[in-house]
Order: sequence, then structure tokens, then C-alpha cells
Amino acid sequence: LVARMREFGTTVFAEMTALAVRTGSINLGQGFPDTDGPPAMLERAVAAINGGFNQYPPGPGVPELRQAVAEHRKAHYDLAYDPDGEILVTVGATEAIAAAVLALCEPGDEVVLFEPYYDSYAAAVALAGAVRRPVALRPVEGRFTFDPAELRAAVGPRTRTILVNSPHNPTGTVFTREELAEIAAVCREHDLIAITDEVYEHLTFDGVEHIPLATFPGMRERTVMISSAGKTFSVTGWKTGWVCAPPELTRAVQTVKQFTTFTASAPWQLAVAHALTHELPWVAALRRDLQAKRDRLMAGLAAAGFGVLRPSGTYFVQTDIRPLGFEDGLALTRELPSLAGVVAIPTQVFYDRPEYGRHFVRFAFCKQDEVIDEAARRLALLG
Amino acid sequence: LVARMREFGTTVFAEMTALAVRTGSINLGQGFPDTDGPPAMLERAVAAINGGFNQYPPGPGVPELRQAVAEHRKAHYDLAYDPDGEILVTVGATEAIAAAVLALCEPGDEVVLFEPYYDSYAAAVALAGAVRRPVALRPVEGRFTFDPAELRAAVGPRTRTILVNSPHNPTGTVFTREELAEIAAVCREHDLIAITDEVYEHLTFDGVEHIPLATFPGMRERTVMISSAGKTFSVTGWKTGWVCAPPELTRAVQTVKQFTTFTASAPWQLAVAHALTHELPWVAALRRDLQAKRDRLMAGLAAAGFGVLRPSGTYFVQTDIRPLGFEDGLALTRELPSLAGVVAIPTQVFYDRPEYGRHFVRFAFCKQDEVIDEAARRLALLG
Ligand SMILES: CSCCC(=O)C(=O)O
Ligand SMILES: CSCCC(=O)C(=O)O
Repeated sequence: LVARMREFGTTVFAEMTALAVRTGSINLGQGFPDTDGPPAMLERAVAAINGGFNQYPPGPGVPELRQAVAEHRKAHYDLAYDPDGEILVTVGATEAIAAAVLALCEPGDEVVLFEPYYDSYAAAVALAGAVRRPVALRPVEGRFTFDPAELRAAVGPRTRTILVNSPHNPTGTVFTREELAEIAAVCREHDLIAITDEVYEHLTFDGVEHIPLATFPGMRERTVMISSAGKTFSVTGWKTGWVCAPPELTRAVQTVKQFTTFTASAPWQLAVAHALTHELPWVAALRRDLQAKRDRLMAGLAAAGFGVLRPSGTYFVQTDIRPLGFEDGLALTRELPSLAGVVAIPTQVFYDRPEYGRHFVRFAFCKQDEVIDEAARRLALLG
Repeated sequence: LVARMREFGTTVFAEMTALAVRTGSINLGQGFPDTDGPPAMLERAVAAINGGFNQYPPGPGVPELRQAVAEHRKAHYDLAYDPDGEILVTVGATEAIAAAVLALCEPGDEVVLFEPYYDSYAAAVALAGAVRRPVALRPVEGRFTFDPAELRAAVGPRTRTILVNSPHNPTGTVFTREELAEIAAVCREHDLIAITDEVYEHLTFDGVEHIPLATFPGMRERTVMISSAGKTFSVTGWKTGWVCAPPELTRAVQTVKQFTTFTASAPWQLAVAHALTHELPWVAALRRDLQAKRDRLMAGLAAAGFGVLRPSGTYFVQTDIRPLGFEDGLALTRELPSLAGVVAIPTQVFYDRPEYGRHFVRFAFCKQDEVIDEAARRLALLG
């Protein structure tokens, strides 16, 4: 393995899911729902397979999907993207992020990102030979947020891009208009390109709405906006995502993307095009369901003795393990299968400075109510 | 776009397919069949979708597929790979190649590869910051082959890996036992890792059989063996491939692969596992069919005045355009839609030294007989 990748082992999600399977534990680690997306979308995928849609799709993606993405962006955010040249279909958001970082970061360039961060960000930066400059998200009155001065201090002459994930995994924070305005100002002042991971864009709660960074003044022209079908339509195993960006940035990402996988699978693209156009009511129901599941898991975790932080979006709730008498989330999550038959994710693995996340553990609530209740029952035995 | 990727534009396959669509030409450019794979395999994919198999599969791939790949390698080539730790499922062979090169080549390392080469090889080498050292395949008595002295001369102290593609795209050459023994000897002498692209392993003709490089003495331990379902089972749009390699190499490729796409789509994996186990008779029939199609297209091209080189494998036939009075394949393929309503691929774009391929043009024959006949009829007007 090349030197620049040696700090990376097996992704914590694969590791923790394997641990759940091996120990027969309830898996509240990796974020995937246990109920599949809209039936009509699944039917479209079947129709594509049976209808002879199984060969290479066009490089930038199937036109129907690019069109549907453009209409969705326009209708939801009043952002206009041309399906020809400003939209690119990828193998999920992960490929989009990797291709964007590889396309835009020279070796030695610096990338600002908010820690804790989804683990593939650091790997993409390392693959590019670039350097990460973390800005910490820390709980303030129960919500993870950043210090604007720390953000400004992280930007230097070699900073070229900033990776922004909102709704934020693993903290559940949805950046406010003020926080995003701060980020946008820094991008404009330092001429940064923003790479935004918005895969949880529809999964927000309590009336909080996701705001794309690209909607801020001067940002559309410098933002690579990324999303995907996996979380919105509960098909994480379909690996279908997309990039919206001005032509030059789209072309750059595509140049790399066509050589990481060539294209994304054909049949999903037709099915997801249908879903983006017709299944947003299904998504609204999912969002209400998830909010109830969030509350259900939060109540169970609180009853079990965890300190619980209320997320405004995503599949995840952060817990503080100190009230239970534990100090180290990494140690606890390793023991949790034998202690309680539950798998969770130690938040510290997403920090460059693990001490900031030492006593936090992440639980996923995108599961059937019985699964959440059984997990809560088991965790209650910890106290 | 970063400097190291600036030599790459849109892949020639996407470009030529777009040209075919735009001009309404017959597309004998990009290699994809116009008939889908085994019905029972398609049914398995549908069953997976309807059966709730739409979420993230395990990182290394679905166990059923890893097991089926192991059994296939054992039965066909007497190569034993452990499904746990020596087999990794990828988003097609393209991702496997990119991840292998990124995992194994340090910046400045040299990679030997045979030109003409599939275009993603050069891009993967560039992404890694490595340097390519081409060895030319040139026609000798109508078959593309290499000069062993040139191969030996291409290996230097910084050479770390060699990329070997057999059956070879775009020439149709299937490396002989002698050619492979030569490559294996060089790998052993210089302690090289071989990355082998064997996606056309089942598509060979005239009784010629594909021999994996990993079967040569001392090679299994130093070979990253790559194949995929797209060509074998006529589902190029499914993007499902796999790597077989010793544990340390598999781990290295997986470390990168988990951050380029995380996982490959779940439903295809179950369907392809079925196909590898039960559909090899279907593949044998495909192979016979393709041989007849090859002969059909070769006859048409010869009648149209092309010099025709007989391929022993793949979907492709190389033609020499000089007998028709043309010199430059790039110029001819650009004109071919208006001259004849046919799209083909200029072979020179796959060479570092384009002069070696200047007068060759590649045509695909993985098409229905009527399509081949109509293309031949149109091309006959060229003479
Ligand atoms: C791509 S792996 C895991 C899914 C996810 O986003 C998470 O669990 O954080
Ligand atoms: C992945 S694109 C094209 C398919 C192919 O292998 C070819 O046409 O050479």
C-alpha cells in the first residue's frame, strides 16, 4: 500500500457492520434503513432491467436523470443547472467526493473540512496528496457548531477547497443560514471552491430546512454540489449520486470520474429519475417517520442513562457516554456487542484530534420501531 | 482541473457514442452488446430488488459472489483464492484498475503497460502521480504482438507494476503461453506486481484459450487479477467486477476502493453470483455467436476494402485503412458518420506514440447480425 494511504484501514462502517453480523448484535452503527424505498421506484428499476436497459449509459449519466436533477434543484432551491454540462451522475456521493477532490486538489494543496467528518473525505484528500486542515465542530448547548475564528484561521495561502457537509454526518447538525453565510464569506474572500455533501438534504426535522451553500451570493459559480439517491429514497445499495456545478468544474470532476468507474449503473438511473420527479411525497412521509424514530431512540438512550444530543437532520444521534460512567467511546463500542448486543460508532474516529470526540458515540435510528425498542431495552441493562 | 489530469479529455468511448447518437450512425465504436445477458440472471436481479436487497452490501462484496468467483477461478484455472480476504468486489474492472494503481504506485513510480491500451490505464497512472512506460504491440503477420527486448528495456529501477490486458483491447490479441511466460519472467526478475485486466477472459475464438498470468510460477503471489461481469454476461451497464489477489494486495486495493465508491451495487452481486455458477453454458453460446459475428464483420470490412486483422478474442477487429486510400484513422473516424453513417474508434488514441496506430481503426462486432450487415453495406460505399 502506498505511503499516503497507510493511515487508513478498513472503513469503520464495514468493520462495525461485520462486528454486528459476527456477534448477532442489533446494528445501529452503519447508516442504512431496514425498509426499502418507494415501490414505484423499485418497479421502474425492474422495468429497466426487463426493458433492455442493461448496457453502458452515457458518460455524464442518463438524460432522464440529469433532467430530473435539474428540475429538482430548480423547484426546491431555485438553483438552475443545465442538464447538459452542469450535471454529472456518479456512483453515489462517495465517488463524487473522491473525483472532485482528485480533480481539484494538487499535491500539497490544503483542504479545509469540518471534523468530525465522514471518513472518505480524509482518504480522498490523502489520495490527492493534499493536506487537510480541520475545523472542529463541538457541542454548544447540545448542538454541534464551529467557531468562525477557527474556520478563518484554518484557511491559508495553499487552501484551495473546503468540504462542507450539511445536514452533517455524524453530528446531525444542519448548518444555519448564519453558519453558511460565514462559510460562503470565507470562500469568496479566499477564492475557494466548495465541495458540498448534501446527501441528507431531505432528512431534516422539527421544521428545520436544509439550505444549499450554492444559494448564497457568489457561491453557485464556485460550488460542486453533491447529493445522491441512497438516503433520500432508502436505497443505499444502489450507489447512484450526482454532481451539480458550473461547466468547468463539472468537466473537471467528470474527467476523473470517467476513469474511476467510467459510468454509474444504468437501470437505477431511470428509476431514480422517476423518484425525483414523482416520489417526493414519499420522502416527506419518510422524513416524518424518521423524526418519530429519532424521538423514540433519543428517549430510549436517555432512559438508559446516555447524555443525548438532539440532531436536526440525518439518520444519527450523538450521545455523551460520561453520564453512564464511561470515558472512551472507542473502548465502549468495542464492548457494546458483549455488554448489550448493540453496535454503534465511536465518534472519535472521525476527528483528526480524537480527544474532541472521545466521549461521544453515534447511534443510527433509520430502523424499524421494534428494532429501536429492542436496542433501547438492551442498552437499559448498561446502567 | 489538476495539472496531472490535463492531458485527459472526455473518454473516446463516451465521445464516439455521443457522436453516433447525434448523427444517427450505427455505433461500432464503444464495446457493448445490443442483446442483454442470460434471462435467469436478469430474473435474479429482479428478485433481489423485490426481495429487499437494496441496501449497502458488505464492503468486500456479497459473500455469495465472492464464493462464486472463488469457485470459478478454481474450476477454470485451478487457482485457489479465499473468498474471505483474497476476493474483492468492485464497480466494474475500471474501478478495480484505478484502485489497484492508486494503492500500489507511489508518485514517481513507473508502470509498464502495453500500448495501445484501454484509456483508463493512463488516467489511473496519472492520478497516482506515477509514470507510464509503454511497450508497443505491433502487427506481425496480422497479429499484434510485442518485442521481448522492448519489454525488458522498459523496466527500470523505479518500475513497480506492470499492467497486462489479455485478451487485449483494442487489438484482439490473446497473449500466448510464450508471451505470458516472458512477462512472468520479467515480473519475477524485477519483483514487479502485475495488474491483469482479464474482462474478456471468456470471449476467445478459434479454440484459443485465455491463460491467466497468475497461473505461471511465482505469479499468483504478485498478481492483482481483475475481471468483471459486463462482457462475460452482456451487462456492461451493471458495473460489477472483482479482484483476486493475495491478502496483502487485496487489502491494499480495498483500502483505496472503499473510498472511491465504498461498495458496488447490491442487487447485481446476487445476480452475477448466480450467473457465474449456472450460466457458463450461456457464455459458451455467446462465444460461438461472437465468433460468427467476428467473421461476418471481417468479411464485410474486407469487401469494403479495409485491411482486416483477425482477432483471437474481445469484441473488436482492427482494420488497416491504407488499402482504402486513407492514412489517418483519427481523421477517418471523424468523417465516417457523414461518409458512411458508421462510428468506429481510432486506434491511435490508445498509443503514447500515436504514429504506431495512425492507420488502424477499431470496429466492434458485438452487435445483432442485421446491424453488422447494414454497417458493412454502408461501409462498402467508401471504396
Ligand atoms: C457509506 S457507509 C455508511 C453510511 C453512512 O453514511 C454512515 O453510516 O455514516
Ligand atoms: C468502458 S467503455 C468502453 C467499452 C470498452 O471496453 C471499449 O469499447 O473498449
